[in-house]
Formats: sequence, C-alpha cells, structure tokens
Amino acid sequence: MAKTPKGFRLHIGLYGRRNVGKSSILNALTSQQVSIVSDIAGTTTDPVEKPMEFLPIGPVLFIDTAGIDDSGALGRKRVSRTRAILDRTDVAILVVPAGEWTSFEDQILKELQHREIPVILVFNKSDLSSAGEQCCRQLFDQGIALVHAVATRGEGMIDLRQALIQVTPDSFLQAPPIVADLVPPGNLAILVTPIDIEAPKGRLILPQVQSIRDLLDGNALSMIVKESELSTALDLLKTPPVLVVTDSQAFLKVAADTPDFIVMTSFSILFARAKGDLEAFVEGAMAIETLRPGDHVLIAEACTHHPVDEDIGRVKIPNWLTEYVGGKLEFSFVRGHDFPGDLRPYQLVIHCGACMWNRREMLSRQLFARKSGVPMANYGLTIAYTLGIFDRALSPFPAARQIYLDRANQKNRNS
Amino acid sequence: MAKTPKGFRLHIGLYGRRNVGKSSILNALTSQQVSIVSDIAGTTTDPVEKPMEFLPIGPVLFIDTAGIDDSGALGRKRVSRTRAILDRTDVAILVVPAGEWTSFEDQILKELQHREIPVILVFNKSDLSSAGEQCCRQLFDQGIALVHAVATRGEGMIDLRQALIQVTPDSFLQAPPIVADLVPPGNLAILVTPIDIEAPKGRLILPQVQSIRDLLDGNALSMIVKESELSTALDLLKTPPVLVVTDSQAFLKVAADTPDFIVMTSFSILFARAKGDLEAFVEGAMAIETLRPGDHVLIAEACTHHPVDEDIGRVKIPNWLTEYVGGKLEFSFVRGHDFPGDLRPYQLVIHCGACMWNRREMLSRQLFARKSGVPMANYGLTIAYTLGIFDRALSPFPAARQIYLDRANQKNRNS
Repeated sequence: MAKTPKGFRLHIGLYGRRNVGKSSILNALTSQQVSIVSDIAGTTTDPVEKPMEFLPIGPVLFIDTAGIDDSGALGRKRVSRTRAILDRTDVAILVVPAGEWTSFEDQILKELQHREIPVILVFNKSDLSSAGEQCCRQLFDQGIALVHAVATRGEGMIDLRQALIQVTPDSFLQAPPIVADLVPPGNLAILVTPIDIEAPKGRLILPQVQSIRDLLDGNALSMIVKESELSTALDLLKTPPVLVVTDSQAFLKVAADTPDFIVMTSFSILFARAKGDLEAFVEGAMAIETLRPGDHVLIAEACTHHPVDEDIGRVKIPNWLTEYVGGKLEFSFVRGHDFPGDLRPYQLVIHCGACMWNRREMLSRQLFARKSGVPMANYGLTIAYTLGIFDRALSPFPAARQIYLDRANQKNRNS
Repeated sequence: MAKTPKGFRLHIGLYGRRNVGKSSILNALTSQQVSIVSDIAGTTTDPVEKPMEFLPIGPVLFIDTAGIDDSGALGRKRVSRTRAILDRTDVAILVVPAGEWTSFEDQILKELQHREIPVILVFNKSDLSSAGEQCCRQLFDQGIALVHAVATRGEGMIDLRQALIQVTPDSFLQAPPIVADLVPPGNLAILVTPIDIEAPKGRLILPQVQSIRDLLDGNALSMIVKESELSTALDLLKTPPVLVVTDSQAFLKVAADTPDFIVMTSFSILFARAKGDLEAFVEGAMAIETLRPGDHVLIAEACTHHPVDEDIGRVKIPNWLTEYVGGKLEFSFVRGHDFPGDLRPYQLVIHCGACMWNRREMLSRQLFARKSGVPMANYGLTIAYTLGIFDRALSPFPAARQIYLDRANQKNRNS
C-alpha cells in the first residue's frame, strides 16, 4: 500500500469550521471499517494529510483543512491556502453543525460547485438540532449528497460511506485487478472451466474471459482446462502454477486434484473482490454458521436471463445450504435490479458474482445490507463455506482470510 | 474419412430418367473439385452409392437412382424402390434434359416437395435446347434452385456446387472443428494472443474465445500467452505443445520462438478452414506470386465496425503485399455485405477470417470468386505468404499444404 503513488489516491478534503467535528467524523468513518485501516508512518511532513487504505474504495488521502475557520469573510491569505487544498481535492466532505449554516458554508460550497468537485454535506450533531431543514431541501434538489450524523456516537457513517461511493469518480472506483496481482509476470495460473454448465455454444462465460484477459494484461500465463484434465495439466508442468482458479461447481474435485501447497480459489471469489468488498462478503458468509432451520434466505442474481445461474442459484446453493444447516430453510429469489427495499425479513442474503455489473452497484448493495443489519455473502463464498473449503479458497487473500481465522479462533476460545 | 458414419454424410440423391446425363453430372461435379476426391473402396455391396469427401460440404453420399426410368407412370414396384431412396435423401438433384419436361419430372418433383426435400433442378444439355423456359419461370417462382448445365463439357458445375451449398441443411453444413481435431484429448495447444491489437478492454476477440472453447469441448488443454511470454511458456512444459496458434500479426516472432518440430499456424488460417474452403483459399493466396505492380487488389472485411481489422486490412496487409510485389498496387476496400457484383476488375481478393459469419456465406463468396475467375485469399494466408512462412503455417493441414507443394514443385520444374 505504501507504494501507491499519491496521485493515484482519492484525495478527500474535509472542510468545515473549527470544532464542527471534522476529526470525530474522520475517526468514526475510519474506525468503523471492517477492514484493516493502516496509517502510514512518515507522513509527518504534512500533518494534516492522512493516507490510508479506505475500503472498498482503496487508497485514499484524507486532507484535514484545519485552519480554514469561521472568522468572518475569507481573507486573502486564507483564500490562497484554501485554494491550494481545493486544487487537489477529488471529493469534498463539508462538515456543518446541524442548524448552523453560515456564509462560510455558502462560500465553500459555491467554490466547490464552481470547480465541479463532488461534495457531501455532513450535518453533524444532528441529534442536537433539527434546524436547517429548509436549506437541506434546497441542497437536496441541487443533487448534493446530504448525510445526517452524530460522529461521536458513530451514527451516519454507513450513509457517509455510501455517499462517498456514490460521488467517487469512476477513475478512482476502478476495480482491483481480477486476478493479475496474484500471478506475477511470466508465471502461470490454471483456470478450470467446466463446460457442462451449458455456457452458450462456442463461447466462454464472462468471468473466464475477463480472467484470461486480465492475466494477459499482466504478462502472466493461463492454462484453460476442464476439471477432468486438471491432473493432466499439472503433470505437464515443470513448475507448478502459482494459482488454480475453478468454477465453484467443481470446487471439491479441483481442491482434491490440486496439491495443498498450490493456492486455489474460485472465479466467484475473484469477482467478489473485483466487483465488491471481499472482506464484507467473508463476514456475510460466516453468518451461515448461525443459520437455523426455518430461517429465510434471499438469493439475488444480477443477470435476468442466464440459464447457467438458474441451476447454481436456484438449485445447488439451496441444496448445499440446507444440508449444511441440517434442516429446511425458506428461500426467496430476486433477479436483476429487482432488489427488496427492506432486507429485514431475511437472515442472510446471497448474491451472485455480478460479473456484468459495475463495482459501484455491488458496493452500494453491500452497504445497504450492512445498514439493514443483514449479512450478505456471495455464491462462491457460500459454496466454499458449505463444502468446508472456505479457509483454502481464501488463501490468495490474507486480509479476508484473517477475518475468518480470527472468528474461528474466537469461537474456539468461547467453546 | 472412411470412419465417418454413413448417417453423418449428406445423402444426395441423383434423380432423372435414363440417359439424361446423371453420370456425366456426377463426374463433372466431382472431377472439377480443387480438393482431393477420394472414393472409398468396399462399397460394392451397393454399387449405386458413391461416398466421397465433397468439399467444402464434407462427407457426402451420392445415390444414383439408375433404374427409376421414364417408362410410363410409376408402377407399384418402382414406387417402393423410389420411396426407399427418397427416404434417405437429404438433398435431391433432379436431372432433366433441357426442353424435355415430362410427367416423370412432375411426379418426382411433387413427391420431393411433399417430403420437403430440398431439390435442385439441373437442365442438362442446355446447349441443345432453349425450351422449357416457361416451366423454369414457374419453378423459379416456387423458389426451386435451377441450374443450366452441359455436363459433358463441365459447364454449370460451379452453379451446381453453389446451389448445393445453398440448399444443404444447416446440420450438414456445420463447420469442421476450429482446432480441436488438431489437438488430441489431454494434449496442449498454446494460443498466442497479442493484446496490443486493441481488443476491447477486459475481452478477448471472438476467434480466441472460440478456439479455447473448442479445445475445452475436445478435452484438450490450452495455454494463453502474449507473444512476449511464448518462450517462458515453452520452458514451463515437460512435453512440448502439439500445436502453437498465433494471431497473424505476431507470425514472425512466434515462428522464430517456436521450435521447428512444433506444428504452428494462425487463428486466421484456422478460421479459413472453419468458415470456408481452406484449399480454395490456399490456391487464392498463391496468386500473390503472379501479382504485378499496378494490379488491383480488393480487401474484404466481414465486420463493419471492428477497429482491430482496420489496422490489419487497411494498413498492414497492403504494406506487406506491396513490399512482396516490389511495386505499387491499387487497393480497394469493402466491408460487411457490401461486396461487388463484378470481381473482374480485381487481380486478387483478400478476405478477412469472417469469424462472425456462418459458413454458408463465406463458401458462397468463394464460389462466386471462382466463377468470376478471380483468386481469393484470406488475411492469415496472405500474411503467411508475404512473410515467407506459408509452408510452415499450413503444416497442420496436409491436403492444403500439398496444393502449395505441388505448385512449388511444378514451378521448379518449369524454371
């Protein structure tokens, strides 16, 4: 992470008067993360900058504009300091004490809009005041993202994260590599692609094509085989592959045929990372452990007409889950953009890999599920969990795997 | 070929009265083939059946209906014999002496139409009579394929072949495998796919996807590498691949990096076979040898909007050809279905791989070019020829290669 050039980080400017709660917002926002937030040492030369890995966006740089305060009109000196920060702001968070809108906020907002910098207004301490509703209405009509927060209690932070994902420019919301970062240049990955899954004649399904292309882009090599030819493929090689990726449906056979020392995962897990927040999906999948007979599971598919998914989502996953739980579960199915506005009736949501979607859409659904307090897993992770190969399937992703290991350790200590 | 089950052969029934020229038609049709026509021995048990490899359709069975003659109305015995042949006729050729339409033809035609068997009417000896025009008009209006022929002089045979391609049912006009027949199950092909050719981000171009899928379908293994990683890939293997396929653009580098004993070709040449008549394309490409400065070359692309082809068809091939010929050539370009109705202004036509088209369309264009007396090559063969690696690029296809070798030997003998 330390190697991410500053220019590739999303620069998030925190604007606001003194004592409006900028630091509380920053602390609340970053401490509530599922994933590892690691401050980088050696940034003391500019103490108001906080570079960090802010998942799921990736590398960001928070810039605290302490010093731009509320002492009257913007003076010349302060204007030039502010301009220097505005110049490098990709996304602005303007923190306003609820009910205390002043000319300072007017001026900053005007400047941000003039520069076409996406802005999120955070009305902090909104428990103390319900004023400012009128200005809200007006700002909302302008399409500005509004968040009500009580930073000291951590309230509103999911909304703020959601708003950040919404306003972050595409270039910063780029997906991580699908697989190329796991296979160094000149090294080989074996991709196991069963074809009994009724992929259209003469075609490969999208995750396979995208994985092959991603490896080509990374100057890596890929070998494409059916599950029945995996052993033959391994025998052909002088040096074993650094990674084996399989369609989840062939997970058990591929796990058995791949020597333990070779890292192995599935296309669906690769896409859980590329199209969403893998760590959050891992947390979601672990909720399978707490499922009880009679619980209600929602299975969500992005595609509306792919016959392949029908089989996995409608038949195989329900069967595996039922077997794992050891009793009848209630299943509901949704497809495409037909997603319930209320997830509370469900104990678990299981989402497909969403290979056809952009990252923003999947991330938004994940945050919506978290806000609803309902765990959300994806197909590949669910299959790996119910088949008992969760740990191994996460082996390429140490941070995600650690979440599982910590939970497993905790459970062992408790039992 | 001998192994093709009879059921997979297109059964072509030759109908007609005695002495109307059925045998002459059959001889003229099969002797005019570019490609090897090999009768199979051991079919003497049924002497009226002639199984052969009839390119470009593939394995066919000609059934000569000698014995169904013109002696009055169809008697009971003859009806049952005729029915037995009709029962296994996929496509019928009804040979009629020009100007001598009788009730026999009426009855056969009616029976064929009743059974929905595609039929081609061949008016033979049409130099001797111009009668029958009126019945022609009527039959033509019914959508029946009509061919005027003088079989003894070989006239009309290209029209007959064209008609056969038009009426042959899709299931018999299936493309040969793209590549799977060249790579036995459990064996490996390396597919070299440069990505500097501006394939859309995250995708592979269609010939690559189709080749990978075809190998999977055949239980073969494929390794996908950029041209810069080919040597690394070869070094990784205990056993060399049985085939290396490259994008034509990387032909020279891949030829240099692939040891001589490994069979090598290009995607474009694979598709010349899958989507058309490879042998005819080979003949076409050899016409490059006779091109002279000032000659007019037509470059035809199936796709209308693929930017990749632009570069190959519009820039690289003209450059290579010009260099090979050693002088300025005149180039014209057409795209999609916008193909000239008159090819005579051109000394050579060069067609793209037509990976988006069905086989029927490409075969029809090839026959049209032959009928016009204008040679037609394809991209991959043209590139291989001008780069001096024609012989090697044809190594997976002995019959096609033989055409080149025979011509080269002939040239040597003549010089």
